[in-house]
Amino acid sequence: MKKSNMLIAQSGGPSMVINQSLVGAVLAARDNPAVGKIYGALHGIQGILDETLIDLRKESRKTLEAVANTPSSALGSVRRKPTAEDCQAIFRVLRKLEIRYFFYIGGNDSAETVHIINEEAVREDYGIGCFHIPKTIDNDLRESDHTPGFGSAARFVACAVRGDDLDNRALGGVKIDVIMGRNAGFLTAAAALARQDPDDGPHLVYLPERPFSIEGFVKDVKAAVKKYRRCVVAVSEGIADKDGTPIIAKFTQEADSHGNVQLSGTGALGDLLATVVKEQAGIKRVRADTFGYLQRSFPGIASATDAMEARLVGVAAVQAAVCDEVSSGSIAIKRRPTKKYAVDFEVVPLRRVAKETRHMPDEFINKAGNNVTQAFLDYARPLVGELPPCARFAQLRD
Amino acid sequence: MKKSNMLIAQSGGPSMVINQSLVGAVLAARDNPAVGKIYGALHGIQGILDETLIDLRKESRKTLEAVANTPSSALGSVRRKPTAEDCQAIFRVLRKLEIRYFFYIGGNDSAETVHIINEEAVREDYGIGCFHIPKTIDNDLRESDHTPGFGSAARFVACAVRGDDLDNRALGGVKIDVIMGRNAGFLTAAAALARQDPDDGPHLVYLPERPFSIEGFVKDVKAAVKKYRRCVVAVSEGIADKDGTPIIAKFTQEADSHGNVQLSGTGALGDLLATVVKEQAGIKRVRADTFGYLQRSFPGIASATDAMEARLVGVAAVQAAVCDEVSSGSIAIKRRPTKKYAVDFEVVPLRRVAKETRHMPDEFINKAGNNVTQAFLDYARPLVGELPPCARFAQLRD
Repeated sequence: MKKSNMLIAQSGGPSMVINQSLVGAVLAARDNPAVGKIYGALHGIQGILDETLIDLRKESRKTLEAVANTPSSALGSVRRKPTAEDCQAIFRVLRKLEIRYFFYIGGNDSAETVHIINEEAVREDYGIGCFHIPKTIDNDLRESDHTPGFGSAARFVACAVRGDDLDNRALGGVKIDVIMGRNAGFLTAAAALARQDPDDGPHLVYLPERPFSIEGFVKDVKAAVKKYRRCVVAVSEGIADKDGTPIIAKFTQEADSHGNVQLSGTGALGDLLATVVKEQAGIKRVRADTFGYLQRSFPGIASATDAMEARLVGVAAVQAAVCDEVSSGSIAIKRRPTKKYAVDFEVVPLRRVAKETRHMPDEFINKAGNNVTQAFLDYARPLVGELPPCARFAQLRD
Repeated sequence: MKKSNMLIAQSGGPSMVINQSLVGAVLAARDNPAVGKIYGALHGIQGILDETLIDLRKESRKTLEAVANTPSSALGSVRRKPTAEDCQAIFRVLRKLEIRYFFYIGGNDSAETVHIINEEAVREDYGIGCFHIPKTIDNDLRESDHTPGFGSAARFVACAVRGDDLDNRALGGVKIDVIMGRNAGFLTAAAALARQDPDDGPHLVYLPERPFSIEGFVKDVKAAVKKYRRCVVAVSEGIADKDGTPIIAKFTQEADSHGNVQLSGTGALGDLLATVVKEQAGIKRVRADTFGYLQRSFPGIASATDAMEARLVGVAAVQAAVCDEVSSGSIAIKRRPTKKYAVDFEVVPLRRVAKETRHMPDEFINKAGNNVTQAFLDYARPLVGELPPCARFAQLRD
């Protein structure tokens, strides 16, 4: 039996569990007699173009397991959309190395990359299984109930807001927490999992799925301060006005090669909103924190469910490509309609996942567009797991 | 035997373990037959002035233990320096309630508050034991080897930077992490505990103890990028120029009643430094995160050593006041000069802790003023504990 070589790489923004998917795929492949060499390309397609590869059969199982539990992308990542010439160059390398299985772990931009490479492979009649392994903290891939990486980032956000809400209780005023999520509000919405008591924050949640107006925001904050004598706000970095212009876009110009404006790695949106509350709501103590990259890379707090599922999507991709000889696809997570949480993994066509994203469904957002519903909390809780409990004095819980 | 009433309150910025000190003091007092009523004043001295008090004998042991493991100040906090009239008003309440033991948990500003109240008590010949119980994530109290709250905040910072450094490895460029610490660099320095391999970040560490110049910073970053092909920077929010003017002070005006300028709750410093690196070092991908309030309030990751010591300073204060009948003081943590980490708790005069702060000693800072020394790492490691291990592929660790 002739063995077929495999290549795997990681792309896009890292997550706390993307290495689980990598290690899941590598260990499944190592155990399969049909697989020959297992290359890891460094920094995504850049590593294929540059032929900077490592031999993933050389790493010990102990190292692989340790890497699986380590946040960020162990092979390095890249934000690069391949051109037609890139694809031709990639094929020259893949042919030379006799790669017959190509796995690319990432979000919708990465699925698009796999899709382009797969179409080029079909056009050139080069037989290669092309698979996208899903990863995104934004939870915005189509076809999936949720995506690996989301549960852990959501857990970070929920923990952070739970602690931050207690901090706000102690010192008062208005606190604004800016959370990642370009087009989808899932991660920001996860802040609501922080709540234990009815008067716990976040008291307001603003998502990119609803138009954001400064006037409405100031009005909401004033009402919350009147009710709770303080206010914690969770707001997505991707909030946009009614014309779809991101609020932050007025303050920054940088864009990547996929045309995405830089939203993260700056405190500008939080500072803008804090200034607005100070000036227009007349509140003195207003603070803003931008959670930034910690949301996707904090070690030691990954959701156990998320880590396990991330491992299993890697395994599922190898099984589909090598055992089932499916020619291409993306692994989707489907939730069973059972009371007890359970999922299945399915292969779906690449084009259905590539490029386009999904958003928070209407039933997850309240009518006023400034909070989440119980349906969202029920959806998200099993993905995030139990949070560290926080307690207050019985005499103060009125 | 006549029982004497006690009052306890929390002040200043919250920490992850300040409730350990509260619960340590309350449980020690509840077990002592000399103590009568145990009042908790809400929001520090404000709660005494307003007579907003709760009865801490009413809370169950189970609730107290749960509160002890909860971040932030369970009684609420305040940033208010009492005036002479405030002190007179406080005495009227203390006398009315027959308070004979007063405990105030907080930093150097809080020690100053206790000191003022104690001097007023002496002047008015009102017999009351006045004790300061130390707390500050800044680790800047005089007389102590380190302060309760620091170890846990340092643990958050070290974990965050360890993950963030892996994120920077994956996508490259320059990452700037802005860390709390008004005048003392201990917490920023703790970022260096993130390192496992020699080429791990943070590659540069800027502390308020050394003058910061934009020119030197740009030069340092360029050199680090040349050496590591990427760069992670840990910088204190309190960095100041050679004249002592905080870099951030040029961008914000807000000050509290102790005359402190607001440094936290804004991303301005990080954004400023990121812009400088982009423009003056010609590096395209530059990101900045400001860790903000998460450093002091994140649930579930407190250092075990810090939590235990925070509990014990609360116990020690009650023992000094009630059992040993010391009239006033602050509890200091002294490290034994033994190889194995161990500490003792001592009562020191309030005036030695009040108002003034301490800074990083020279032997903790490298000659160039842009990094910490091994001596600092040896000092800080036992306070923070083992961090979640992060692993890289053996082939990439060269």
